[in-house]
Amino acid sequence: MKNQALVKDLVALIGPDKVISEELDLLCYSYDSSFKSRNHRFVPDAVVTPRSTEEVSKIMKYAYANNIPVTPRGAATGETCGAVPVRGGIVLDLSTWDTIEEIDTSNMQAIVRPGVVHANLNKELAKYGLFFPPDPGSSRMCTIGGMVANNSSGLRAVKYGTTENYVLGLEVVLPYGDVIVTGGMKSRAIKNVSGMNLTKLFVGSEGTLGVITRVRLRVWPKPKARGILMAVFPDLEDAPQTVLEVYQAGILPAGIEILDDSAIKAVNEYKPEINLPDAQAILLFELDGNPASVEWEGNEVARIAKKRASQVEWSTDPERMAQLWEGRSVTAAAAARVRPDGSRVFAGEDISVPLSKVTECLRRIKELGEKYGVGVVNYGHIGDGNVHTAPVIDPESPEEIERVEKFADAIHRLAVELGGSTTGEHGVGLVRAPYARLEHGPAVDIMLLIKRALDPKGIMNPGKLLPEEEEARVS
Amino acid sequence: MKNQALVKDLVALIGPDKVISEELDLLCYSYDSSFKSRNHRFVPDAVVTPRSTEEVSKIMKYAYANNIPVTPRGAATGETCGAVPVRGGIVLDLSTWDTIEEIDTSNMQAIVRPGVVHANLNKELAKYGLFFPPDPGSSRMCTIGGMVANNSSGLRAVKYGTTENYVLGLEVVLPYGDVIVTGGMKSRAIKNVSGMNLTKLFVGSEGTLGVITRVRLRVWPKPKARGILMAVFPDLEDAPQTVLEVYQAGILPAGIEILDDSAIKAVNEYKPEINLPDAQAILLFELDGNPASVEWEGNEVARIAKKRASQVEWSTDPERMAQLWEGRSVTAAAAARVRPDGSRVFAGEDISVPLSKVTECLRRIKELGEKYGVGVVNYGHIGDGNVHTAPVIDPESPEEIERVEKFADAIHRLAVELGGSTTGEHGVGLVRAPYARLEHGPAVDIMLLIKRALDPKGIMNPGKLLPEEEEARVS
Repeated sequence: MKNQALVKDLVALIGPDKVISEELDLLCYSYDSSFKSRNHRFVPDAVVTPRSTEEVSKIMKYAYANNIPVTPRGAATGETCGAVPVRGGIVLDLSTWDTIEEIDTSNMQAIVRPGVVHANLNKELAKYGLFFPPDPGSSRMCTIGGMVANNSSGLRAVKYGTTENYVLGLEVVLPYGDVIVTGGMKSRAIKNVSGMNLTKLFVGSEGTLGVITRVRLRVWPKPKARGILMAVFPDLEDAPQTVLEVYQAGILPAGIEILDDSAIKAVNEYKPEINLPDAQAILLFELDGNPASVEWEGNEVARIAKKRASQVEWSTDPERMAQLWEGRSVTAAAAARVRPDGSRVFAGEDISVPLSKVTECLRRIKELGEKYGVGVVNYGHIGDGNVHTAPVIDPESPEEIERVEKFADAIHRLAVELGGSTTGEHGVGLVRAPYARLEHGPAVDIMLLIKRALDPKGIMNPGKLLPEEEEARVS
Repeated sequence: MKNQALVKDLVALIGPDKVISEELDLLCYSYDSSFKSRNHRFVPDAVVTPRSTEEVSKIMKYAYANNIPVTPRGAATGETCGAVPVRGGIVLDLSTWDTIEEIDTSNMQAIVRPGVVHANLNKELAKYGLFFPPDPGSSRMCTIGGMVANNSSGLRAVKYGTTENYVLGLEVVLPYGDVIVTGGMKSRAIKNVSGMNLTKLFVGSEGTLGVITRVRLRVWPKPKARGILMAVFPDLEDAPQTVLEVYQAGILPAGIEILDDSAIKAVNEYKPEINLPDAQAILLFELDGNPASVEWEGNEVARIAKKRASQVEWSTDPERMAQLWEGRSVTAAAAARVRPDGSRVFAGEDISVPLSKVTECLRRIKELGEKYGVGVVNYGHIGDGNVHTAPVIDPESPEEIERVEKFADAIHRLAVELGGSTTGEHGVGLVRAPYARLEHGPAVDIMLLIKRALDPKGIMNPGKLLPEEEEARVS
């Protein structure tokens, strides 16, 4: 066993019950939900499951002294290899450290350890009429630590923003084992402009700067009411125009989702009983707030949508809302079935573009699909331009894999060309790191300078977020 | 003239009309709105008024090569010496560079140069039904560049957050003159998790990491309606309890302001016709949204407030709203008049504490006022615990100055003790830098590491934000 000495050391540090070293077990830590890790296995040398800041600190001190890469991991629901150890070394499995330390109702805050599952936190918060607004699709699996590391969000980001908007402070174990608290050592303040904003620097840094061991979140009062509006558009162009007019009417919906004709077709083939109307686009608006507000806004959005839509329906009835939403909720599953021998793969799946470019973007993704011979289903969060493209291929065919990789590359370049980003919410990880300079230009040098200042040995989640092999080009 | 060589060089770089060097003119750049700069003058060696990124870059390259401190300056409305050159050198006056480059209505964004005045931007945005929500009291003077550098906000932060929530990207000239764009070089995306979050690192860094030369802001649809509710409380404790119950009812007001008995007294003495009721606390709630929502929430807040208040009034009539709000709007002016021979000074004026500690905080500030013999008026943004204390002293008396400095020091320490921050929205600058380690502990070392990585010669706004003389204590 090549990792025998390492395992022995780790056992001495934190005890045998928190160290995983059997080859078969290690294999389980060699992938996340990404397409990339389906095709390449990244096996760690050892996995540890610390349950205290002290244990994480001990491990980091040891890893730093011995130049061993460390990859923090939550539930590994990510699509970018963010939580897989591409250089081997130690995986810090934080998913078992799932303590909700406090729901501080009088200050509307939640203090949690990194392994708390998103849905569990919101279940606990609901007891007090509170909620943590970001809503990733993986809610029932993903951890708060992972959400912070990726700055995760979901379809309600258009109104509520992303995870970073709710992180008030973090406890972080640095690459060399020191522990810091951002946002004020003993703070329970909501508002604070003291010092450099380290909190937001760590949010979304994908485990490349340190290990998040505690999160102080601001939470919000849960809205009392919601409603769903479905609008069907014969012309694709009419969808973004309608969204814009809704904004111009002073309305900020909690979510605005689009299914284009490819998604409509996929849903109808997958579940004919849903029977979505044949159209170029369907928009789904979610409105939330107090009951009076939701009713007012529902009527107003309906009025606006009717200018262009062939069909509009608005409901606040829970059963009917679920039906209206069903097309959207089965889209991902439906996409996976558009080819009997195919699977939906996560590649080029998360670009964002300006709202004004959504139509062009959807058209050009279709053209790219034709060019590379890749079947595509398009849906996403049109309200903030976050397009989810689902390529469907035979994942066992090396030739199809090569084609979809070219297709994904073209989508990433398209996003940047249209004034967008290679990733709206899923993150960079290993798969989008090569686009860093294309998207950010010389700002990458500053990211590399900061990386080097905080992690001089480059042991924290190497290979992720940044093109690490490059030297910073500083004049 | 000791700065003759410097002035000659600057004139050669950007032309004589953009260089200010007369001694009397330089004096105008030696202070901001702070108490500190009232007592100490910090005179620059030269002032420049660049109007292009290239000019800023030229100046930074020159300053870097010659080790000359550079202090960026907007409208100098700050209370912390943030924009005054405490080590001399060059002041970059960016206030004349006030171009609104674009209101991108289809993507709900505004692209501005740093000198644009906040109120002017909102006036322009209003033409399109949009607004930039942060609302500093200095709206008619302060610049967007200054707001970004300080992460400014105001009384609506409780619902809308601070400036950082709206900054999508920045153009920044680095200390050595290179130019980067954060948030994506050509991006107009709203949602983006690509790369390290440099945008948020520069927001609130108070000019210590680089010069902000362009700002890409997300803006929001302007709410259609608003209403004001005033509630009068015989018992101070009842004020935060009422705020908490409003939150628990699922309502997030745009603003929640408090006047304690000291502020009520000051207002009534200043303008007897306002005739605020005699009480321990008055709360003012601002509610905004669509008309139906505002009405619903106004009634609900009134119902909650009536449980404890001796008097509650709710209005959506513009004239009556202005009357209800008048007590709050004159508080700062009223505070300045509580002593005929005195002035309100900005010292210890911006702490934030957890909502659960607001009552204790107000009581203890009064005790501190008695201990140090300083008259105090208290008001602030109770919704997020941001307490504005107005000490009133004779600013010509060295003895009173010494006492108020001790008083302010005690308030800053009280804030940290209560789990709050030395500054909720005004910033650190020179005056709160000494508290960095008290508030942030070892996180200060990481701030210093980042400062050194980006500004190795320490020329960017030295003396601000961080205790710069300290070496980072990294193990």
